[in-house]
Amino acid sequence: MSEFLDEHIAAVRAAAERIRPHVRRTPALRTDLDPGLRLKAECFQVTGSFKPRGAFNAILSLVERGPRPNGVIAVSSGNHAQAVALAARTVGLPALILIPADANPAKVAATRALGAEVIQENVTFANREQRLREMMAERQLTLVHPFDDWDVIHGQGTATLELLADEPDLDVIAAPLGGGGLLSGAAIAAKSHSSKLKVVGVEPAAADDAYRSWKAHRIVALERTPATLADGVRTTAIRERNFEVMFGRGLVDEVVTVTEDEIAAAVRLAWTRLHLALEPTGALPVAAYIAGKLGTGRIGMILSGGNANLETVATLLTQ
Amino acid sequence: MSEFLDEHIAAVRAAAERIRPHVRRTPALRTDLDPGLRLKAECFQVTGSFKPRGAFNAILSLVERGPRPNGVIAVSSGNHAQAVALAARTVGLPALILIPADANPAKVAATRALGAEVIQENVTFANREQRLREMMAERQLTLVHPFDDWDVIHGQGTATLELLADEPDLDVIAAPLGGGGLLSGAAIAAKSHSSKLKVVGVEPAAADDAYRSWKAHRIVALERTPATLADGVRTTAIRERNFEVMFGRGLVDEVVTVTEDEIAAAVRLAWTRLHLALEPTGALPVAAYIAGKLGTGRIGMILSGGNANLETVATLLTQ
Repeated sequence: MSEFLDEHIAAVRAAAERIRPHVRRTPALRTDLDPGLRLKAECFQVTGSFKPRGAFNAILSLVERGPRPNGVIAVSSGNHAQAVALAARTVGLPALILIPADANPAKVAATRALGAEVIQENVTFANREQRLREMMAERQLTLVHPFDDWDVIHGQGTATLELLADEPDLDVIAAPLGGGGLLSGAAIAAKSHSSKLKVVGVEPAAADDAYRSWKAHRIVALERTPATLADGVRTTAIRERNFEVMFGRGLVDEVVTVTEDEIAAAVRLAWTRLHLALEPTGALPVAAYIAGKLGTGRIGMILSGGNANLETVATLLTQ
Repeated sequence: MSEFLDEHIAAVRAAAERIRPHVRRTPALRTDLDPGLRLKAECFQVTGSFKPRGAFNAILSLVERGPRPNGVIAVSSGNHAQAVALAARTVGLPALILIPADANPAKVAATRALGAEVIQENVTFANREQRLREMMAERQLTLVHPFDDWDVIHGQGTATLELLADEPDLDVIAAPLGGGGLLSGAAIAAKSHSSKLKVVGVEPAAADDAYRSWKAHRIVALERTPATLADGVRTTAIRERNFEVMFGRGLVDEVVTVTEDEIAAAVRLAWTRLHLALEPTGALPVAAYIAGKLGTGRIGMILSGGNANLETVATLLTQ
């Protein structure tokens, strides 16, 4: 095993210890659909997604390292917002979350209910990075980036660490791929477990920047924020840390893309056969399975979350 | 502990050993909704409901006791059909299932896919018991009753036995109540664990025969098959064995009823907050929780299954 992998798996293991009191050990479920599948159901994680793993590791590490920060800041319209809010409240730090003005009001309310200050005024998907820099400077807050952060990557890796502790004989690990935080962590845990364990990232074809980056051997950014049912993976580009882990070091074997129809079918299949209420992003590995893109053998799927918009899902279920 | 309870908990424990190779140990999930809740998610059981616990215990016990039966027969339009088909196939016995002609074609197909012979012609909800007696006599088959059978009751009790092994400090156990097989088994396991553990059955107000039987201290039957979203508990009356366990011996503390609106709200809450795709029957304890009828403390809920009709559920989700 390489020095790079040694160092990072040690950090993932340390993250697991650090966050243990604050997160749930989610089950690795089996299903009648296919005896080879193992489902890491992160929809049962606190706040309904895997995101607290990274957020807790980042914020607890910040406080451990000192000096104590004034507070933390994040930009997110989704699961990262709630995760940062919860982790900050747990350690007694103020949290400021920038959420684009057109975001789902239920998610804004959930973030506020966790004690965070939310700013939506004049925040758009396009200008949110600039607004973030302004607010960071103005209030001297520390950024918790959703994926371009080693602590976050190591925290997300704990999901795969747990899955492999429960199911050591997997042939494939598949995870959703947006900014690459979850998949980078998964790849570190998987390749440290066995170099033969195949690691696959699943991305919507409509948001295929990471697929293109993998093919081009450099970071390729989309020109605009993509439209996809899988609203958790609408990032336009991965960043350096994620590129290095996944493609530079080659810890990810393959990126596969799925169509919107396959994502919709995956949400339906998750309900009817897996009995899991997944958000479309969380169902991405199921979509790749339906499309026959995960190969055969024992396949571990990281099903990343369950915070679906109910109207969207109800529409999908009857298509 | 009474001799009655001693004898029956021993049979539940024996059932757990007997069926172990054939069923899944489902997780006891926690949820952000309420830190006191523990969810025994039987939607993840083989075939998508708790029913194989009882069916396997009954059919394996039949074969153990000998002489080897010609085959088994059951009448069911739902989860018991698939459970009996699977258990019979596993031990190599033919299974004949009578399913009313107007049943959900998907459930008929699932039962046939498990190797059972299905008869639907001239089978109605009203005449099915008579047709059953005719076919039993004609083919010399052994009945696997869905709830009026000690082996079935003991098998269903294993769900609560597992839940209490994982969560020994519960104050309340709540389970759906139709024919009473699941609740009878739950009551035996719960009261053997602690006489202080409160056992609650949850029934739709539209199908309240067990509630009336509890109040009347005798079996009260409904005049006709009730209409309720919770199509797994449409039985018109419990039977002697269930009455004895639940009310005669007093192992069930309370029966509560829920409205159709509460059942619909429970299915929605299960999706949005519990991230479980439950069938309406499986959500009955959640409905009672919403209605404030389960009291406080640590509440274990047996969420019995997830085989929902997708169209029905999609309609409920957007109500």
